[in-house]
Amino acid sequence: MDAINKQLISIKDASRLLRSASTKKKNLFLEKLAESLVRNSDKILEENAKDLQTASGLNLAMKKRLTLSAEGIKAMAQGVREIFSLPDPVGVIVQKWRRPNGMEVRKIRVPIGVIFFVFESRPNVIVDAAALAIKSGNVLLARGGKEVGHSNEILDKCISEALGASGLPTTAVQQLSDKTHEAIYEVLHHPECVDLAVTRGREQLIKAVKENARMPVIAHERGLCSIYIDEFADKEKAIKIVVNAKVSNPAVCNSAETVLIHQGAVKNILPDLIDRLIKEGVEVRGSEEVCALDSRCQKAGDADWDTEYLDLIISIKIVTSLDEALAHIEQHGSRHSDAIITENSSHADRFIREVNNAAVLVNASTRLVDGGEFGLGAEFGISTAPIHMRGPMGLEDLTVTKYIVLGDGQIRE
Amino acid sequence: MDAINKQLISIKDASRLLRSASTKKKNLFLEKLAESLVRNSDKILEENAKDLQTASGLNLAMKKRLTLSAEGIKAMAQGVREIFSLPDPVGVIVQKWRRPNGMEVRKIRVPIGVIFFVFESRPNVIVDAAALAIKSGNVLLARGGKEVGHSNEILDKCISEALGASGLPTTAVQQLSDKTHEAIYEVLHHPECVDLAVTRGREQLIKAVKENARMPVIAHERGLCSIYIDEFADKEKAIKIVVNAKVSNPAVCNSAETVLIHQGAVKNILPDLIDRLIKEGVEVRGSEEVCALDSRCQKAGDADWDTEYLDLIISIKIVTSLDEALAHIEQHGSRHSDAIITENSSHADRFIREVNNAAVLVNASTRLVDGGEFGLGAEFGISTAPIHMRGPMGLEDLTVTKYIVLGDGQIRE
Repeated sequence: MDAINKQLISIKDASRLLRSASTKKKNLFLEKLAESLVRNSDKILEENAKDLQTASGLNLAMKKRLTLSAEGIKAMAQGVREIFSLPDPVGVIVQKWRRPNGMEVRKIRVPIGVIFFVFESRPNVIVDAAALAIKSGNVLLARGGKEVGHSNEILDKCISEALGASGLPTTAVQQLSDKTHEAIYEVLHHPECVDLAVTRGREQLIKAVKENARMPVIAHERGLCSIYIDEFADKEKAIKIVVNAKVSNPAVCNSAETVLIHQGAVKNILPDLIDRLIKEGVEVRGSEEVCALDSRCQKAGDADWDTEYLDLIISIKIVTSLDEALAHIEQHGSRHSDAIITENSSHADRFIREVNNAAVLVNASTRLVDGGEFGLGAEFGISTAPIHMRGPMGLEDLTVTKYIVLGDGQIRE
Repeated sequence: MDAINKQLISIKDASRLLRSASTKKKNLFLEKLAESLVRNSDKILEENAKDLQTASGLNLAMKKRLTLSAEGIKAMAQGVREIFSLPDPVGVIVQKWRRPNGMEVRKIRVPIGVIFFVFESRPNVIVDAAALAIKSGNVLLARGGKEVGHSNEILDKCISEALGASGLPTTAVQQLSDKTHEAIYEVLHHPECVDLAVTRGREQLIKAVKENARMPVIAHERGLCSIYIDEFADKEKAIKIVVNAKVSNPAVCNSAETVLIHQGAVKNILPDLIDRLIKEGVEVRGSEEVCALDSRCQKAGDADWDTEYLDLIISIKIVTSLDEALAHIEQHGSRHSDAIITENSSHADRFIREVNNAAVLVNASTRLVDGGEFGLGAEFGISTAPIHMRGPMGLEDLTVTKYIVLGDGQIRE
């Protein structure tokens, strides 16, 4: 475990430097990183091809997640450039006020510190995470999944190169050198060195991180996203949104798994919705009433309402009221993203107020819950944590507020 | 453990109701609570007297922490009324913007949910916590220390009464009925019911909560607060602030334990500072150079720089530069509150930027780091957590941001 301790000490040292690094240096890093990605595009594709060769037994959707393309690398570099153009959140005064005794109280943003990032698949993730972490004055100890080990290694080289070229410590982004599972647990037991653990990947991995961590964890957990089609839904919007939320990329957390439809909307909307879904290659599961509408539907079992398919499967339930829909989401949802399709604003307001999750959408696809789509440049993941923040985790979310008091001799009376 | 599970289910149910409770009802609760405290003042004092009788072997400062007075109860009621007059943070739009596709993205504040509060001593804490939790739409499962068991019980009755009188569920604030230590650990293993654990008290207790919790923990940890007297310090301010920070209430976390003084300020300030401190009954510990200035000083050992005295003791170190002061605080500080006394604004700026803690003060006493002093009405404690927020934890800090997307049919392209 000596190697781990050495890494922890070196990353903590780097953190002290990054905390007060200038915006200019941090932006220079982003510029260099974007350049390096484009310049090394062929090499990155070669390494990614090695990962894909090794990966076996994955479904098509999962393979799609792991695959990089020349366009994908350009998009990564573009994401880094977008972060370049966003304002530096460090030192920003969130609020300030003066107290009767004359002292000024300020709430300002500062970096969190050392972030331990445990993640799986998706080779672009490490680049987004490094770019966001450095721009917000944090340092990153990364432990990526083996399935994209080659990709992560070459991307890590690009990151180190860019750190060096911008005058920042090359130790500010490190891959955990010990690749065993025990090494993950060891790091999680050092809250004096690591300020925050962030994790995304399989439920099992996330559970293990949460159970072992002695520091706060922000988990980007599974998305069991529901779409509720209200009795006052617009038919065209409902069908367009459900199809997009299921079909555009079923392997990701913000795709929809469940449709709840008000009984008053069934006759007008449901037959055409099912027909469209099936034509798009989706397997539709539902209650007997749903199956009666279209013989191509499968009967849904109890387990379906708790399953994140991550595949071209969707389950549909008819509900008798908004209350029943809210109760279903409370019981089966995963506090990620849920949408309501309605033209009734008081129904929309109730849905917004009562659904306890990271993001509520009104007449929009759950697939839009994404750092890029929200204009955040990129995201660390989508937080379903109860504190700190929920939803796509961007630059500002990698800071924390602290207090500054400016006085001229004030004491406690 | 059946009783615990029953409590967890009932508090989770209450949370669903509190999440969307109206400001009117929440404020009515605060009004009723303030009334109830004043009306029951005599009974509360009686119960507090029982606690003090049982408590033995405590130093004077600790006894002071446990003791309630008629004025103290009035002040508690006043704190509750201040929270009444603060705006409801729930539903507040923190930011909003429109995306090129026409959808509006909003970041809004919502309650955290179920808060498990594990705390020791200080009988006013439960009232502040309940008032802040309810006003921000949260529910509270409380586990107070045995040393104020009688006080907590009568205060809990006042809280229940006020909840009932305002039409809110009386289950929204509960004392953990099982008083064993095992019960604490059991609750900490239910992240599906408890969203956040908050803890304040002895280091040992906080450590146990942090190690066992499966949900996020916000710890209000020990305060090893330092005051750095810069070479450009104003003498009068320096002496006034150090004396106040040590003497006004040595038993609390925001009192000062260490003074770092620049060698350039020693001759002008230190002899008088030591004299004042000793006249105030403070035991002064320091290096040989410090002791040479005043024979009444004690020699400081290595352990002194890491000790939170919580008593009338202070240690003083002479440093050769701002860098040395910053390095000392980085190594020995507890990330709570630290002050710089200086008339040099670039030194103040560097101190603000480089000290990694919850609150930095410039020319003001560390004792001012407090919810009441900051104008927050009250505080849940002073957070030294690396994420969510740092410093006195008020109403807003008991909420979390989530996203709302308002669309009219937007999908992911």
